[in-house]
Amino acid sequence: MTLVYEGKAKRVFTTEEDGVYRIEYKDEVTAGNGAKKDSMAGKGRLNNLITSKFFEKLNEEGYASHFISRLSETEQLVRKVDIIPLEVVVRNKAAGSIVKRLGLTKGQAFEVPLVEFYYKNDELNDPIITEDHVKLLNIADDEEIKALKEQALIINRILIRLMEQMNLSLIDFKIEFGKDKDGTILLADEISPDTCRIWDKATNENFDKDVYREDTGSLIDTYTAFYNKLEAL
Amino acid sequence: MTLVYEGKAKRVFTTEEDGVYRIEYKDEVTAGNGAKKDSMAGKGRLNNLITSKFFEKLNEEGYASHFISRLSETEQLVRKVDIIPLEVVVRNKAAGSIVKRLGLTKGQAFEVPLVEFYYKNDELNDPIITEDHVKLLNIADDEEIKALKEQALIINRILIRLMEQMNLSLIDFKIEFGKDKDGTILLADEISPDTCRIWDKATNENFDKDVYREDTGSLIDTYTAFYNKLEAL
Repeated sequence: MTLVYEGKAKRVFTTEEDGVYRIEYKDEVTAGNGAKKDSMAGKGRLNNLITSKFFEKLNEEGYASHFISRLSETEQLVRKVDIIPLEVVVRNKAAGSIVKRLGLTKGQAFEVPLVEFYYKNDELNDPIITEDHVKLLNIADDEEIKALKEQALIINRILIRLMEQMNLSLIDFKIEFGKDKDGTILLADEISPDTCRIWDKATNENFDKDVYREDTGSLIDTYTAFYNKLEAL
Repeated sequence: MTLVYEGKAKRVFTTEEDGVYRIEYKDEVTAGNGAKKDSMAGKGRLNNLITSKFFEKLNEEGYASHFISRLSETEQLVRKVDIIPLEVVVRNKAAGSIVKRLGLTKGQAFEVPLVEFYYKNDELNDPIITEDHVKLLNIADDEEIKALKEQALIINRILIRLMEQMNLSLIDFKIEFGKDKDGTILLADEISPDTCRIWDKATNENFDKDVYREDTGSLIDTYTAFYNKLEAL
């Protein structure tokens, strides 16, 4: 079982089955592209449980991802894909970097959900890029860009509906896609409070990593509370 | 004659004629959004002469801009427009900010010219924005975005041909557009070594503001040399 990739929050291993990878969620938590860094017991378990649940829910809605099954409290089996080096961000309301970058008001709702591409490159600090940059960097062609945006918006609609049922509001999220051996684009990576901004509908309380980024609460308590809501669905 | 607008390099005044403005080019030179700043006698004159010449050349090619006529060594008459708050950048080769931002090689040629939009906002440091941001900020709609890109590429083709005749290579440039009272989009602002990156075809020597940004030569001598080449066309 070879280690294929190690990121800030996950390790990816080969398995005995060709085309199947095992993902192990780590207890590491980082913010600001690794500028802030901690280890928190139980964090990997929570993100694995939450991500597995989200991928199962997407599957129930007819939206397939790289996810095959949850293997343990901290591990998943997934289809092998080559990750497309883009962070695809969907924003329903203004929060985080876009507030400062474009001079918006935090919480301001967008008339239509906004899709952004960031170039997955730690050295360059994951810069925002345009569709023309995506083509220039040979990351994706016109058709693939269109597919990525369409899929991001489908996922957004499904997640919004799930959050509604938990009395939560999906502010924004980041997803990553990969290509399988046939070139089919599949949702990959994770969907968790690490990669989403989720606010309580009534109080705007954070159910996401902003409690860690902004030092406003316990990450483990926050993720546990979110997981309990998700489990109760 | 009321002062309508004062920027880093120009002043815009009303005239006795409705719908006609007078632009006065200043001797100020700045770089890095005003971080570096100097006054250089003769700089306003050179940029006015060069910009007037470029706008005349564009006119000869059938491409109309806001330019009416050169009034004096430092002044132009132009059609009144409301400036669209976008810096439209066209890049033929990688230089300047994009090299660092996307990890490219300086001088690397692009297969197709790249068009970028920057949000004209000094407080925000003119951030790069996507077409979806342009719509979100209500700066332009789909049709206008398409027109801006098309016009930018037409101007690029004309300028490249002019530069070729001077044995120069047009690396990149920034233009701004405005809307007249009928909503027609017109090229406005200036085209000068302040807003273009121009390299000698043989030696890659700069004929642009990089000599000031990078402290590699006399700005006035460089702009004078460029103007002499342009005048000789």
